[in-house]
Amino acid sequence: MTSLSARLAAAGLTLPPPPRPGGSYDPVVVDGTLAHVSGQIALRDGELVANGIVGDGVDVETAQECARVCTLNALAALAGALDDPELSRVVRVLKVTVFVASAASFIGQPAVANAASELFVAALGDAGRHARSAVGVAALPRGTPVELDAVVRVRE
Amino acid sequence: MTSLSARLAAAGLTLPPPPRPGGSYDPVVVDGTLAHVSGQIALRDGELVANGIVGDGVDVETAQECARVCTLNALAALAGALDDPELSRVVRVLKVTVFVASAASFIGQPAVANAASELFVAALGDAGRHARSAVGVAALPRGTPVELDAVVRVRE
Amino acid sequence: MTSLSARLAAAGLTLPPPPRPGGSYDPVVVDGTLAHVSGQIALRDGELVANGIVGDGVDVETAQECARVCTLNALAALAGALDDPELSRVVRVLKVTVFVASAASFIGQPAVANAASELFVAALGDAGRHARSAVGVAALPRGTPVELDAVVRVRE
Repeated sequence: MTSLSARLAAAGLTLPPPPRPGGSYDPVVVDGTLAHVSGQIALRDGELVANGIVGDGVDVETAQECARVCTLNALAALAGALDDPELSRVVRVLKVTVFVASAASFIGQPAVANAASELFVAALGDAGRHARSAVGVAALPRGTPVELDAVVRVRE
Repeated sequence: MTSLSARLAAAGLTLPPPPRPGGSYDPVVVDGTLAHVSGQIALRDGELVANGIVGDGVDVETAQECARVCTLNALAALAGALDDPELSRVVRVLKVTVFVASAASFIGQPAVANAASELFVAALGDAGRHARSAVGVAALPRGTPVELDAVVRVRE
Repeated sequence: MTSLSARLAAAGLTLPPPPRPGGSYDPVVVDGTLAHVSGQIALRDGELVANGIVGDGVDVETAQECARVCTLNALAALAGALDDPELSRVVRVLKVTVFVASAASFIGQPAVANAASELFVAALGDAGRHARSAVGVAALPRGTPVELDAVVRVRE
């Protein structure tokens, strides 16, 4: 079994430190074998990778990069909460919801969300395969173009 | 116990083939007795039933028809994933989230979502009764006016 | 252990009666030890506390009050469904999703959602701590500026 860090390295990536929550909530709640990961925004080294609305100033490639950063933050939050830096306790990512700040004319949310979905699988293998919803919202916290959350089955 | 196909026939409906996912994700993840159904859009025979924003070109009746098509697609996806064409393994639909592409002035999301909720019950009887959120979003994949996803308890 | 009613009284609050669902769905589905609470809007005594879009007529303080009213309605719905007025069966609030009707320029969803998150903890203590997503949507049912739903672990 390939480790998370080896898989990420193969993609030229490393896990960031667990992000601090941007409000009065827990980054992850682990309840037995079910983990709920809070909505992650596109913060890297404490700064948003981009800012604004897709289809009105933010292009799809930029939004895809945001989706990848959100995914790394979700993995990092989960690793922190489980005290499991290689995420060896992850059985399966069950569901990912991807919110894309969208102009009314932008209907390419799946292309944005695919960048997240593909990184979950690159990082976790088949355990990263998931059900997904991708929707276009009016605005997101701090101006992030993308936010995502996840429900994950883990070993106790 | 009335079968799904008989219930649908009584409503003049038949289950479509399981929809193909519109991106890099699984249509349904079945994890033990919990199934997460990915966001379904209003595709019928490979074409969107309608296209656009409710309250800005799409009317409520059209959006309700979209909601019914999304619901049929959710049932079909679940039937495919469970290899259970009559959905006899469904114990209860736990939660449905209905996303309605909405103009800022459109506040009738519940009327749209009711078309989905009523079809879940018509199709599954009491097992189709569910908790629900209905929200108005800025835009949806490929221009679908409605998208919905679901969490379902099933027998192993 | 402090009771829910004592905790709410300390905050100058009381639990309202369980809200009626605004459509063809169940207010809460309790499935074994997992409860899904339907989307709650800012209704108090049958009237919306406010109406409209945050950042376009509704200010943050008003939206925070809406978030608190939604939270009380969620707690009341759960108490009604469990027939447990003090919510002593609540083990943990796992996830809260807060939808804020937002102008495209409004990026303060976390400040709005914090009012909900803080009330969950004020009402339930550590059992009220939760994972959260906060997003800005285009419009919400009946014009409520805030809607929230929740997933809650309960004792059987």
